[in-house]
Amino acid sequence: MKVALLGPEGTYTHEAALKYFGEFEPVWCETITEVFESNTEAKFVPVENSLGGEVRDTVDMLRKRNETVTGEVTLKINHCLISETNLEQIKTVKSHPQALSQCKEIIDENGWSSEKTSSTAKAVENLGKGEAALASETAAKINGLNILKKAIQDRDINTTRFFALNTEIEEKEKTALILEPGSDQPGLLHSMLSCFADQGINLSHIQSRPTKRKLGEYYFYVEAEISNDTDEFSNALNCLEDYARVKVLGSYSAGR
Amino acid sequence: MKVALLGPEGTYTHEAALKYFGEFEPVWCETITEVFESNTEAKFVPVENSLGGEVRDTVDMLRKRNETVTGEVTLKINHCLISETNLEQIKTVKSHPQALSQCKEIIDENGWSSEKTSSTAKAVENLGKGEAALASETAAKINGLNILKKAIQDRDINTTRFFALNTEIEEKEKTALILEPGSDQPGLLHSMLSCFADQGINLSHIQSRPTKRKLGEYYFYVEAEISNDTDEFSNALNCLEDYARVKVLGSYSAGR
Repeated sequence: MKVALLGPEGTYTHEAALKYFGEFEPVWCETITEVFESNTEAKFVPVENSLGGEVRDTVDMLRKRNETVTGEVTLKINHCLISETNLEQIKTVKSHPQALSQCKEIIDENGWSSEKTSSTAKAVENLGKGEAALASETAAKINGLNILKKAIQDRDINTTRFFALNTEIEEKEKTALILEPGSDQPGLLHSMLSCFADQGINLSHIQSRPTKRKLGEYYFYVEAEISNDTDEFSNALNCLEDYARVKVLGSYSAGR
Repeated sequence: MKVALLGPEGTYTHEAALKYFGEFEPVWCETITEVFESNTEAKFVPVENSLGGEVRDTVDMLRKRNETVTGEVTLKINHCLISETNLEQIKTVKSHPQALSQCKEIIDENGWSSEKTSSTAKAVENLGKGEAALASETAAKINGLNILKKAIQDRDINTTRFFALNTEIEEKEKTALILEPGSDQPGLLHSMLSCFADQGINLSHIQSRPTKRKLGEYYFYVEAEISNDTDEFSNALNCLEDYARVKVLGSYSAGR
């Protein structure tokens, strides 16, 4: 199956897509917008990170375009130390600035100098003598290089959640939706959340985003722990439509 | 009065601070984190933009540090065309990539080439023959250059909201607070919003942010349209404390 996703080969998005799809034929894109605008039906995008929060481009494009969320997967970001050299001979480590800052302890302990690259995958491509890269296990495999150490990040809390779009649905455990209030009114969000609470539906995620029309005007991105096939969901939907235009983005199984 | 804020001189943050304080003695910082960590008591930070949404570093630092929100101001971002040359002689425009993309129409119509700089203020500093900068009115004044055209952006919806911290309070119209739920429970956000709704308090802003402890764990940043001196606010606070640790960030007058 062809899948559009953020490249280049060997990034953590690539690693997450391998975890979700197993084998697939990648169509590499340079930006999240490009993934959404790709002619390839199946798409794969990051939606949330445990350190940064929601991926704004993804949420905004889910609102704008008509793609169906059909699957979810989470990936723990494990930076590997990748090189052809021995550990003792490393002088310089290369990686994306974010990865370098997440592995500060091991870099400082060993007195390595660091060099910034545009992506973690890029760091692996041109390693010179005495150089190592911080990147994914997948990047090491693709480039036929050794992994000297795994999971070298300072803190173990860097997890990213991804969505598969327009693929086969396995199970319907969660539903993503966009709520677009027509006009602001006191207690609006509370009223909308009552629609879910009255049906005993729990929300696993809620995010307000600017409509880009004027300051202080928002739409809401919500994930509910329920299938869109249920009576409870239909009831909640009826209730919500009194307050907002509702766009149901799709139901999917919760990522493990 | 000394005020710590994002530099360099002539940025839109500078323009907003001039609007809020009138005269002040600027202490320039390079990042929002640096502003928060500055020894200068009075601070001035962007909190929300109509296109990008909340300024994550500011919200996270409000949670982390103990600063008091005391004032608010909004600024419409008006890009000016700044040069020593006549309009007819312009060949190249320089600015921050975001400003260049926001002024795409005028650039394309005139067939100008464009050159990226690290900030809008930086673009004004070294203008050669046939070059113009896209930047704030303040940047033009500081550098003694002409403004050839004002408000040249494609769409008029780019507004940023700023907070003053630890300054004199003018009036208490709004209150900012952080809600940090101890453990997740179904309908938690709905219950917390009920605390406000039951007291007839309207919220002008709500944002969920990752706690950076694990994926799917959030804290909430809220702005309520009420003073923290009122009985209604005290009642809401009592109610909220059943569900979350509450940090009141301060009350301030609504920005015009």
